[in-house]
Parts: sequence; structure tokens; C-alpha cells
Amino acid sequence: MAQFEATRVLRFGDCDPAGIAYFPRYFDLLNGVVEEWWGAMGHPWKVLFGPRRIGLPTVRFEVDFRAPAFLGDELRFSLAVKRIGRKSVDLDHFVRRGDTVLWQCRQTLVATSLDTHKSIVWPDDLRVSLVSFQEAPHAHHPAA
Amino acid sequence: MAQFEATRVLRFGDCDPAGIAYFPRYFDLLNGVVEEWWGAMGHPWKVLFGPRRIGLPTVRFEVDFRAPAFLGDELRFSLAVKRIGRKSVDLDHFVRRGDTVLWQCRQTLVATSLDTHKSIVWPDDLRVSLVSFQEAPHAHHPAA
Amino acid sequence: MAQFEATRVLRFGDCDPAGIAYFPRYFDLLNGVVEEWWGAMGHPWKVLFGPRRIGLPTVRFEVDFRAPAFLGDELRFSLAVKRIGRKSVDLDHFVRRGDTVLWQCRQTLVATSLDTHKSIVWPDDLRVSLVSFQEAPHAHHPAA
Amino acid sequence: MAQFEATRVLRFGDCDPAGIAYFPRYFDLLNGVVEEWWGAMGHPWKVLFGPRRIGLPTVRFEVDFRAPAFLGDELRFSLAVKRIGRKSVDLDHFVRRGDTVLWQCRQTLVATSLDTHKSIVWPDDLRVSLVSFQEAPHAHHPAA
Repeated sequence: MAQFEATRVLRFGDCDPAGIAYFPRYFDLLNGVVEEWWGAMGHPWKVLFGPRRIGLPTVRFEVDFRAPAFLGDELRFSLAVKRIGRKSVDLDHFVRRGDTVLWQCRQTLVATSLDTHKSIVWPDDLRVSLVSFQEAPHAHHPAA
Repeated sequence: MAQFEATRVLRFGDCDPAGIAYFPRYFDLLNGVVEEWWGAMGHPWKVLFGPRRIGLPTVRFEVDFRAPAFLGDELRFSLAVKRIGRKSVDLDHFVRRGDTVLWQCRQTLVATSLDTHKSIVWPDDLRVSLVSFQEAPHAHHPAA
Repeated sequence: MAQFEATRVLRFGDCDPAGIAYFPRYFDLLNGVVEEWWGAMGHPWKVLFGPRRIGLPTVRFEVDFRAPAFLGDELRFSLAVKRIGRKSVDLDHFVRRGDTVLWQCRQTLVATSLDTHKSIVWPDDLRVSLVSFQEAPHAHHPAA
Repeated sequence: MAQFEATRVLRFGDCDPAGIAYFPRYFDLLNGVVEEWWGAMGHPWKVLFGPRRIGLPTVRFEVDFRAPAFLGDELRFSLAVKRIGRKSVDLDHFVRRGDTVLWQCRQTLVATSLDTHKSIVWPDDLRVSLVSFQEAPHAHHPAA
């Protein structure tokens, strides 16, 4: 199954007084990876959220944090499409340091109209991109 | 079952370019409510994370976002203790605007040593506080 | 000179691995106080940034950080209007813990159109509010 | 004069409901660039803030925001050392999109002990690195 991969260094501003990753910042990093993935599929959020007025809010998260990450750690995010619905998509995320899975999550995104904030059926081009990504045999890396 | 309740106004800095709450900021607000609750039980994090070197990382989240929140909305957080483990506690959170549940989540926290980042059995005083809270008949509100 | 005052507790999520306030979070707190002040003057940002399409970006900051703040500290923000320009306003901020000034800053905001992101002359009602605030003899506190 | 340069894409989470960069996030990005620069000089913050117990808080900022940045913009940060004091350093930052300066700031950092939060004289190795950087003829880029 195709995977989108991205690397992030855990910065000072991502860490808490306990010296480990502050989990709300994990979600901020994760959201940035999801944004980067849409861009790599040819759908920059600048266009989706701008002229096309399409939102992609998260409606469900299941998250397991397994091990703490520390200041300066290199985090490898990996994203796969688990299921494509008529108006939603389920993503599986794994975040590793070396071979250790630090945390993982299942995220459900829905397509919405930014005018009504109601869910909409995937526009054809977005659905095609999701299906193509899901069916591609190789890992996708962002351009360096 | 006892509930801890807290109110937060959704600020400009909590919102995203779609004009609704940015979900990583929701977790930041939630974490602040959990911190406030520990303080109301007599255990300010200043003391836990400082001299006592006790951490309270989250190891699991299940979150359902049901409706968007908008700039200026008044969010009512409500927290209940679902289960007290030997080294962990499960919390149920509901976040409402008026009578509408905007989102809800189940959060599992564990007690850890900040020196080893390993889980520890609840210190007696913390366990007593959790049990007392869980068994109290009334809602708890923070001091105004 | 009139002052707007607001109190914030320094939360876990506002602090860094050094155990003190992370300065980007200070600016986030400050922005929330400015937002609260506009609301107290009768101009909630929900309306300004929504139907009225008026932005209030910051064009200049001069900040002096004098002493660190720690987890759990109660911060007292105090805001005064220093100068009202045709399209801008200068604010003086002081942030204290007890009687100690932790940091202070001069901030210049401008009124802009959110359609063009160009500066605009203050709409009359906003200018009247700024002048009334500046000339009021007493400190303003937000409703509890 | 030597410059350290770094590039950041302005992410969704960096933007506000007005659709432009939220300035507290600018400071978060800036802090990450400063962290990266110290790492490139051989002093990762993991070591400074960890075993060496050295803090680098900011004591002064002068910031001019000249033009808004939008979702997806590529921001080029450039950092130069203006002045090295006995216990402090002044940095000049410019943030550009293409050839346009979006914002610039002068930042004063001081070295502190994380045990006392008092300023300290620069440890020799840190001072040597700062002087070497300042005197180097070329721009420094982080490893790709």
C-alpha cells in the first residue's frame, strides 16, 4: 500500500516542561504532514481552502502514544489511506524515531463546504487523487 | 457522577483559515482544563512537574468532533473520571456550546516518573483525590 | 489614562523545556487580551473579521522581557492606548506578576480591509471607541 | 557578514481566520530557525538545555511586519549576528518571500543558568562559535 512519508525535527517549541513532546503540537505537526500530502497529490490547501472553498475537517481520531519523543528527535511520519468513503477518508498514521513507533493514529477527514460547513461528496478530482494514491505501489516522498 | 466544569472562549488564535476551531488548539485548551482540574483537587502541576517530578502524559485518545466551533463561541468543558487504574486514569470529556455537544473524547493519562519517563503506581495522595472526585455527588466548578 | 486589565494563568502548554514561559505563547496570550479588549469596547472580532471584513494586523512590536514567568503564575495584563492615528493605534502593554513587571511592549495595530489586506482609515465607530477608551478616567476590567 | 538561512512553508496551522500568518506563529517559526542555527554551529539545544543547563531566553525584540504572508508561501529566513556582548548576542532577522521583505526583527538573546535563571557570561565554546560565525565570509545553509 502506498505511503506518504515526511520527516520533522522535534523543536524546542514542540516540547513541554517535562522535556518531551507536548501532544497538541503533535497534532499540529500531523496536520502539516496531511497538508503536505494533499499538496504532493496536486491539491495545495491554498487552492482548496481559498478559491474552491473546500474544507477538510477531522471528525474522528483514535490515537495511541507509545513512547515519549525528546527535543531534537527526528520524527518520521508515514501516512496511508485506509478507506475512501463517499464524503470522507480514513488515514492511518505512524510516527517513528528510528524503528520505534512513538505514536500512531487513525484519522477520519471529511470534505465540507466552507460556506455551509456541511459535508459534501468528494469532488471528482479529489476522489481520483485519493484512489490513485491508495492504489500506487510505492512510497511517496515529498520533493526534497 | 462528579464532573469538573470549565468555560473557555474560542479566541482568534484558536481558529484556522476556515474560520473554525483548529483542532490542535482544542487539545491545548483541553490540556489546560485537565491542568485546572488537578489544581482544583489540590495538586497544582507546578508542584507535580516540579519538586515531585511526576508526569501525566496521555497514552490514548478517542475523539469525535461533531460540529464546528466558531470565533467567539463560549465552550463549556465537562470532565468526568471513568476508570481509575493502578497507574492510569480514564477521563470522559464533553465540550458543549449551549446544549450542543461539539466534541467529546476519552483520554487515558498515566502517572510517570519524570526521571525515567516510565509509568509509576499512583502516589497515595493522588489516588485518594481521584477516588474522592469520582465518588463526589456534585459538579465541581473552579473558583471564579 | 484608562487601562484594560485581564488576568491569565500561565499554563503547562505555555511553558517550554526550560520550565518558563515560551515567548511565542506570550504573544498568543497578548493577542487574546487585545481581542478581549475590543470585545469589551463593543466590537467583537467575530463581527469585525466576519461580516465587516476588517483586519487588525500588528505592524510593529517593541518588547522587553525583564523576568521569567513560571508554570502556574498569575499574569496580570494591562493595556493602554498611547496614540490613535488615522489608520493605526499604538498600545502600551505591561504584564505583571504581583508588582513585578515581567515584560512590557509597545504594539502598533493598523486597520485593514480583509479583501485587499491594505490599510484603511478607522471606521467612525471604531475610532470613537478608541478615543472614548483613551479618555476614560478609570481602569476597565472585563466582566468576570 | 555571514548569514544563516532557512526556509519554511507557511502552513495552515500558522494562519489565522483572516487567512494570513498569525504573528505568534511567526515567533515560533523564528525560534525554530534560531534553534537550527545553534545546532548548525555544533550546539544542539538538546545538549545546551539538557546536560549543560544553559538557557537562551530572549530579552528584547524589535519587530516590523511589512507585508502579510499567505497560506503556502515559502518563507526564507536569514539571520546575522549584529553584536556579541559578554552575556548576550544581538541577531538581525529578515524574512522574505521571493525578494520581498515580509518582516524583520532585531532580537537580543542572553545566556542564562537554568538553575538560577540569571544571566551568565558566555561559556568559551559558545562565544568562539558566535565569533566564528560572525566573521565567516559566506552564507551558511543548513544541511538539506
